[in-house]
Amino acid sequence: MRLRLGVAYDGTRFAGWAAQPGQRTVEGELEEALVRVLRLDGPVAVTCAGRTDAGVHARGQVCHVDVPTTAFAATSGRSSRSPELALTTRLLGTLPPDIRVRRVVVAPDGFDARFSALWRRYAYRICDDPAAEDPLRRFEILEHHRRPLDVSAMNAAAGRMLGEHDFAAFCRRREGATTIRRLLELSWERESSGLLVCRVVADAFCHSMVRALVGALLRVGEGARPDDWPARVLSGKVRDSGVNVVPARGLTLEEVGYPPADALAARADEARRKRTLAS
Amino acid sequence: MRLRLGVAYDGTRFAGWAAQPGQRTVEGELEEALVRVLRLDGPVAVTCAGRTDAGVHARGQVCHVDVPTTAFAATSGRSSRSPELALTTRLLGTLPPDIRVRRVVVAPDGFDARFSALWRRYAYRICDDPAAEDPLRRFEILEHHRRPLDVSAMNAAAGRMLGEHDFAAFCRRREGATTIRRLLELSWERESSGLLVCRVVADAFCHSMVRALVGALLRVGEGARPDDWPARVLSGKVRDSGVNVVPARGLTLEEVGYPPADALAARADEARRKRTLAS
Repeated sequence: MRLRLGVAYDGTRFAGWAAQPGQRTVEGELEEALVRVLRLDGPVAVTCAGRTDAGVHARGQVCHVDVPTTAFAATSGRSSRSPELALTTRLLGTLPPDIRVRRVVVAPDGFDARFSALWRRYAYRICDDPAAEDPLRRFEILEHHRRPLDVSAMNAAAGRMLGEHDFAAFCRRREGATTIRRLLELSWERESSGLLVCRVVADAFCHSMVRALVGALLRVGEGARPDDWPARVLSGKVRDSGVNVVPARGLTLEEVGYPPADALAARADEARRKRTLAS
Repeated sequence: MRLRLGVAYDGTRFAGWAAQPGQRTVEGELEEALVRVLRLDGPVAVTCAGRTDAGVHARGQVCHVDVPTTAFAATSGRSSRSPELALTTRLLGTLPPDIRVRRVVVAPDGFDARFSALWRRYAYRICDDPAAEDPLRRFEILEHHRRPLDVSAMNAAAGRMLGEHDFAAFCRRREGATTIRRLLELSWERESSGLLVCRVVADAFCHSMVRALVGALLRVGEGARPDDWPARVLSGKVRDSGVNVVPARGLTLEEVGYPPADALAARADEARRKRTLAS
């Protein structure tokens, strides 16, 4: 049977999501905890909606994992708790404090955490004002004190990039993978605390895309480039050395959106076709 | 001349505010950074509004420090920045990342960070629901997963404790110090994230008072005591073994309130009389 997991983590001390030999990864820790709590004989494979890089955080990561029905039912033990709640509580007790499983549910038919997703929402947080410094959140916020950022210029630049485009200029090249994505939202807001937050929503992202988009907008916010520059880089379809990929620490995967249950399988088929074949 | 400093810190790795030989303290780090940045020959003494215990955090700590006028003016160097901004920036560069100075201003006449204060506001944060777990904020939130807490029962109990009382039952005894305090607010709210936050405002607090008040209300929230129990403990005026002092990690000093500039000196005189003499 397939389970859907809601997962949050502080990415600071992880070499990213994807399991790698000899590295501390979110996938590795989660798979190990599932094997232990479900008392499985062999390994399990967890699939996630957003394969975050080293140092990137998540509050709204969504995963799926296929587990034996009997092992899942056995997590309740002799208690009256549901297996969903029992497994959540046991995983919380087993996982290190920088990974938390918020919710476990039996996945609806056709659910695939990666391919059924309609959109991913990330936030990038920057502090450009000493009065907004928050040492309690320093691991999820980039300090940027060279000069205050011009939010309306960054929003003007961001607005020109919305829609479906080939984001090759903001992606690391991979053979045989399309770099066409639909950018649904890209906007900056100054919160009441003084913190700057960039909301980025797309159907999917290629590698380092959010951090390259934010890097390009920061150049506009600093006054170093005009507000039509990021869209010009986009239309060039090649990496531009003027675009810095900003550090991972400010980036958090906040939410993943899915269609209603009866559309999950069709969405997964469509995304698999679009994402894995060369375009 | 006297400076007023706004200070924030992650208390996790500090042995509290007050300087102690051989211990890492907020006061110690701050005084050392001021001596270095102002190039002083001797030590400085920083006075704060709330002497937080080991492990307690602050976003809204307020301090004062008396420094030589020439040393302060010299922080601008040859730049066009004000000494206030220059000192803020230099302190941010010198202090460790778990202490941030948000703001430096020249203090108005009669200002005393401790005795001019009208009120202190603390927050105590608890997560009693796996769906609200936030590993990025784990150092400022207490996990409490035994059972969900009854917010309305805790608020009923809290409402009975407002006003001026002798809080001896919730304070560590000290010779010659009054334990009479005016509790202005004590209320729980469940935020949209699912997190529980207790707001506590009083003219001043005695040692461990917030954590003992929260500990008493948690017993009510768990259903272990009726909602009139904390007020009965209060009227007993002696420590009750049923009241647990909750851990420091959930506690943050959020804000300190002061009167208008022309009332600062009178307020300081009044508070000094009330607070330091036996009542």
